[in-house]
Formats: sequence, structure tokens, C-alpha cells
Amino acid sequence: MDLSSLARPQALRGGSTGALGAHAARRRSVQLLHPRRPTFRCSVEAANARQQVQGTLAAEAEAARKECFGVFCTTYDLEALASGEVFGQDQPIALKLLGSERSLQALEGVAMELEDSLYPLLREVSIGIDPYVIFEDADWALLIGAKPRGPGVERAALLDINGQIFAEQGKALNAVASRNVKVIVVGNPCNTNALICLKNAPNLPAKNFHALTRLDENRAKCQLALKAGVFYDKISNMTIWGNHSTTQVPDFLNAKINGTPVKEVIKDTKWLEEDFTITVQKRGGVLIQKWGRSSAASTAVSIVDAMRSLVTPTPEGDWFSTGVYTTGNPYGIAADIVFSMPCRSKGDGDYELVKDVAMDDFLWGRIKKSEAELIAEKRCVAHLTGEGNAFCDLPGDTMLPGEM
Amino acid sequence: MDLSSLARPQALRGGSTGALGAHAARRRSVQLLHPRRPTFRCSVEAANARQQVQGTLAAEAEAARKECFGVFCTTYDLEALASGEVFGQDQPIALKLLGSERSLQALEGVAMELEDSLYPLLREVSIGIDPYVIFEDADWALLIGAKPRGPGVERAALLDINGQIFAEQGKALNAVASRNVKVIVVGNPCNTNALICLKNAPNLPAKNFHALTRLDENRAKCQLALKAGVFYDKISNMTIWGNHSTTQVPDFLNAKINGTPVKEVIKDTKWLEEDFTITVQKRGGVLIQKWGRSSAASTAVSIVDAMRSLVTPTPEGDWFSTGVYTTGNPYGIAADIVFSMPCRSKGDGDYELVKDVAMDDFLWGRIKKSEAELIAEKRCVAHLTGEGNAFCDLPGDTMLPGEM
Repeated sequence: MDLSSLARPQALRGGSTGALGAHAARRRSVQLLHPRRPTFRCSVEAANARQQVQGTLAAEAEAARKECFGVFCTTYDLEALASGEVFGQDQPIALKLLGSERSLQALEGVAMELEDSLYPLLREVSIGIDPYVIFEDADWALLIGAKPRGPGVERAALLDINGQIFAEQGKALNAVASRNVKVIVVGNPCNTNALICLKNAPNLPAKNFHALTRLDENRAKCQLALKAGVFYDKISNMTIWGNHSTTQVPDFLNAKINGTPVKEVIKDTKWLEEDFTITVQKRGGVLIQKWGRSSAASTAVSIVDAMRSLVTPTPEGDWFSTGVYTTGNPYGIAADIVFSMPCRSKGDGDYELVKDVAMDDFLWGRIKKSEAELIAEKRCVAHLTGEGNAFCDLPGDTMLPGEM
Repeated sequence: MDLSSLARPQALRGGSTGALGAHAARRRSVQLLHPRRPTFRCSVEAANARQQVQGTLAAEAEAARKECFGVFCTTYDLEALASGEVFGQDQPIALKLLGSERSLQALEGVAMELEDSLYPLLREVSIGIDPYVIFEDADWALLIGAKPRGPGVERAALLDINGQIFAEQGKALNAVASRNVKVIVVGNPCNTNALICLKNAPNLPAKNFHALTRLDENRAKCQLALKAGVFYDKISNMTIWGNHSTTQVPDFLNAKINGTPVKEVIKDTKWLEEDFTITVQKRGGVLIQKWGRSSAASTAVSIVDAMRSLVTPTPEGDWFSTGVYTTGNPYGIAADIVFSMPCRSKGDGDYELVKDVAMDDFLWGRIKKSEAELIAEKRCVAHLTGEGNAFCDLPGDTMLPGEM
């Protein structure tokens, strides 16, 4: 599968934002599916849909088959769903999977696996290769597909190849997605891909575009827990600043262990300043060495985490990291790039940047380095953001997490 | 990973059975983790453990490191967990992953992925290659590892190769697992592997050994839903009878759609008698053709389904399928084999066979064919069950679901 987008079933419009993706259909996502008192507004289309589902004639199912997959073409009682009669306050989900011509058969396989999993809330699955069809009315778009960097491929070349994918998808989202679609860019280099995407979607709020740095946050929490000898649920306020690359900055100045600043718990400054950051940055590469495969499982979990962080209120005093548009940020980071920063959410799908974070020279120095990299990446894709001719002077050939 | 076994954290003994596996760490498993009012009895070991966890010295963490993996070596407040203070009525989980010498590095990768996923209830992970260590005190053992049949390998040869794995694991379970361990055999040929396993574990209840036919049940439900034009949650009482092979019998005589017998809803008898069964049996093969990979995702979901069916009360009037020991069955199926049959559970980890099922000549004829195959498979592994010399006269070279 190249990427997936999500939409609520067509008849369910209005208040609720819960949804989840194919790659994200994992354990912890269930918590995502309890929006508080969802209010559904049924449009005229919904009334039509209701009439359709009252008949279950094979002919109707057949007619619907072109826009959906297998068992997900079957009709069901939308009203009972909408009222919560069937699933309580849970949120039914429609998955639309975007593939390429080459991957369409594999995508059918993915849909078959979804069928055979009997997920009770997964009510619609459709697959296709046209982003203008697949993204239609999507409330969430998870942009996963990107070409991995092969041996000998320069980062500039990768930026160009993958950037084109995200320019195209930005245009499609701009044209057909929900006007409040939330976009999570996973495909690498995800910060600059997210920037390209939002620049090609001028009619959508730039604020709604995210570059996934949640796996880095999770890895950083895990490493701090390991060093401190506590379980990972004791780590809070963990920020990943900057680019999802080796210049990323796991912030041990603001992070806490059991509510206490990390530096008061872990006295080993050398470990914090050197080993900790390197371990987080290189985690993906070590995994590939050991297991021979990339971190698809933990990435999927982190996508779910990222979505849940936007649809559930952030715990008092805590925050989460996500790569977002910098214009208007309170930290003095350059405007008009996508940079991972600490955020809080009321659980409405939106977020705010956290203002009261500490800063010191060490942290700021690293942040500036990541910022410089992103500004250089931006110049390198100017032809894709509509800002003139590209000029590539990337500061060194930095790696993506996981690249060897 | 070759296979995984599960145990509650050592200090938590007594009332609760909830647990889940690495491959099973998927979305729906959360529901599994709500045992009703778990009662924990803390043994002397627990008291010791409590003392240990009060110190969080690096030295202790280091000492513990040999028996555990990474962040899961860290100590935590067992008492708060046990009282439900930390996780409410949820069930913490210890995962022990058994690999081979060859797969140990990959297993480390799996454990790393589990670390980075920050599963809040996953409190212990250990990995190893000695089943006598890994299976110690296990409450659940998921036996996943088996060699797939390569081109030109006879089913008899496969039975011998894989049978040896399950004989060894049966002996280890017999020696060190919880006296009420539940064993779910996933590695194929799973019915006969389960038989071998239980025969090598004479001190454990034969009733506790299961061969996974839940994916077949899920697939059958999906196909009936598709044919009837309803959503899959409307299908109930779906039995898979017999062997997890192409002789398996998806039972459309007893299954219901919206509470109505299938045959009253689907009038297409030819489809029911021919296409339906073939589609279910061949589903795995079609998936491999399309996607180029086996049904690992839906299999993992079905393992979770199988476990949840044993730890939650079966809905009134419904049942589930699992391959279990036949001695004493009310249907007239040969004793002393492992055969998939309809079961109900009170949610205590145990189950009962459903007595009031309809039978007709068509269904019985197919059941007898699957029974004959399993009796032949049993003769073929007599050297592994301690019942004399093997004699292989398998009735045709039947395939496993998914084999091409």
C-alpha cells in the first residue's frame, strides 16, 4: 500500500473526528474510538443512503461494488450506527486506500485481510489509484507512501522524487478532501514532504498538516525510561524538535521523569548530550540490522498515537510532539517550514503550541542546526512549492532515521 | 519469531487469565484486558519482588537484564498494578518470546519494536531459545513457529519435521508451564501438531490444547455476509468442523444470519455446497497470489479472537470454533484426535462443546472425510505421540489453507 486516507461513512457528517487507518489498525487505537457524545447531522445524501440500505438486494450490492471492496460493499443500518445503538458511542470508520497501478493487487490483498479480520467498526473499505477519488471527503489523510532512498541516491534526488508525490497529493487534497482534513505525512523526508503538500493545498489550513515525529518521541521516552530504571509511562513532556532526520533534537531539558526534570534524575550529562540523542536517531538503523526490516510495527503504533493525541484532550501539564507549520511559532524558529514542536490538544483534532518551555544554549544550538537543514531542504524543493527554482545546498548529506 | 508464550508477571498469581501475544498485539485485543474483578494472590516471591522494585538502582536493573529485554527489565510498582490503581481493572502482561539460535537477533528486533510501541500494559518482555526457560509459569502459550511446506515436500515429511518441534514444546510445557496453561497451536499442520503437543504433556489437561481454526471461522463469516449482503456482525453460530486443511468443513447448516438459518436466507444451494467452502479453504492461497504474502495480519487478529473467546463469556445462543481434543465429544467423532468443533465459554479460560447442533448427511459426510484425514495424520506421527511406529497412508496429499 502506498498510502491511505480516511473518511467517515458518507452519511455520518458533523461532530465526530474519530477514525483510524489500515496500518494503524492496531491494539491501542481502540481508545481513539470513543468520541464524547458525537453529534451526527444527516444530510440529504444520508437520507438517500438510508433508503438504499433498507433493501439488501444483490443487484444493489453489485452496483455498489465498483466503489468499495468485498464485504464492505454490503449495506448496513446507518441510523442504528449513527445513534450509537449498534456500537454505543463508538465511531464507525471508512477506509480509503490509495495505491499505484503497480500496487493495486497488493492493495486488494490488504483489503482481503481487513475483511477477514471482522473489525466491528470498519464499515467501508475502498481502494483505488486516483487521489482525486480516494481523498474525497476524507477527514484524515495518512500519507505513508514514499520511495525509500536506495544506495547511491543523493538526498536532493530523493527530495525531488518524493516531493513530486506529495505535491500531487496536496493538490488532490486541496480539491476534494474535507475542508478540515487532518493530514499526517509519514513518507520521508516527512517534514519537507509535509511542507510541499501544504503548499500545494492553499485552500486547506496549513495548520492541519503534520509530519510524523511521534515514533522519535516514543523512542526517546523508552530510552529515558531505560536509563532511569522506570517504566515508560513515567516519562512526560518529551519533545522532539526539528526535522525527522539525524538532526532531530530529543529534548531532555524539558522532559520529566515522574514529574521531575530529567536532568535531576539522570546525572550522566555525557549520556544525555551524546548517547541519548544518537540512540534515538539511530534506533531505526539498529532495528534493520537486527531484524532485517524497518520499524513498520512501531511506526503504525506511533501513527495511532499521533491521531489519538489530536482527538483526545492532552493530560494536564503534558504535551506531545508533531511536525507542524512554523509560521507564528513563539520560539523564534524560522517561519514557513514544518518543524517538530511541543503541542497540546483539546481533543477536537486541533492543537496549540506549548509556550512555557525552557531553552538553553545547548538545546537552541541543536534546534538551529535542524532548522538550517530544513531551510536548505526547502530551497531544494522550491520548484515543488511554487517558489521558483530549486537550489540544493544541503548541509552535509544527513540521513533519515533508519538509513544506514 | 518462532513462537511466543505468555505469562502474567511473576508476582501476579491467582484469579485472572487475560494476556496477549506479540503477534496478537493488535487492535481488538484491548477488550481482552478487562477481566472482571481480578483477584491477585501475592506469594512470597511477590513480596520479594515488591522489595526489589522499591529500589531503582542501576545495579539491580543490570542484574535483571539477563532475564528480560531492554526497558522491560525496569522495575515497577507491582502493588499499584495489582490493586488496579495504575491501570484500573486492566491486566498487565508479560511476554516471553521463544526463538531459535538462528532467529534470536530477529527476536531482539521484535522486542525493540515492542519497546518503542510503549504499550502501557506490556510490563515484561523476555526472549530466549530454551523452551524450558521461556515456558516457565506460562498461562498462555501461542505456538506459532513451524516450517512451511516448500515445493516438493510431502505432507508426511512436513508432519514429521514440524511434529518434532511440537513434541519438544509439549515436553517443555509439561515440565514448567502453569498447570492450567492454555495452549493455542497455530503452526501447521496445527490439528496434528496440537495432538502431538498434548500427547507429550501428559500432566497437563488435554482439554487445554487448541488448534487455531478461528481464521477459517472469520473467513466463513465474511463470505456468508458478502453473499447475503449484510455486515459480518450479523453472522453467528459459525462452526468450522475438522482439520485446518482443505478438508475443513464450514458449517452452513447451523450458521445463522440475523438469527435466521443460513439456508433460509441464501437459497443458492450450489453456492453453499460448493463455492462457499472452496472460497473459505482457498482464501489464503488467493491472498498470497494477490499480495505475495501470507495472511499474518488476519491470523494475528484471529489468535486474539480465539483467546478472547475463552476469557469472555460467549454471547447467549452463539458459539465459536476451535480445534480441541475429541475424547468424550457428543457428535460421534472419533476419540483421541484434535478436531475443530463448536464451543462455548463462561469466560474462565475453559470451554464446553455445544450439544444442540443439527446434522445432515451432507455435513456428516464432510465431517467424516476430515476425520479420516486426521486419523491418517495421527498414524503418520505415531512415533511422536509415543504410540508405536508411524505408518503414513495419507488420503491424497491435501493442502493446508494457503498452500498453492
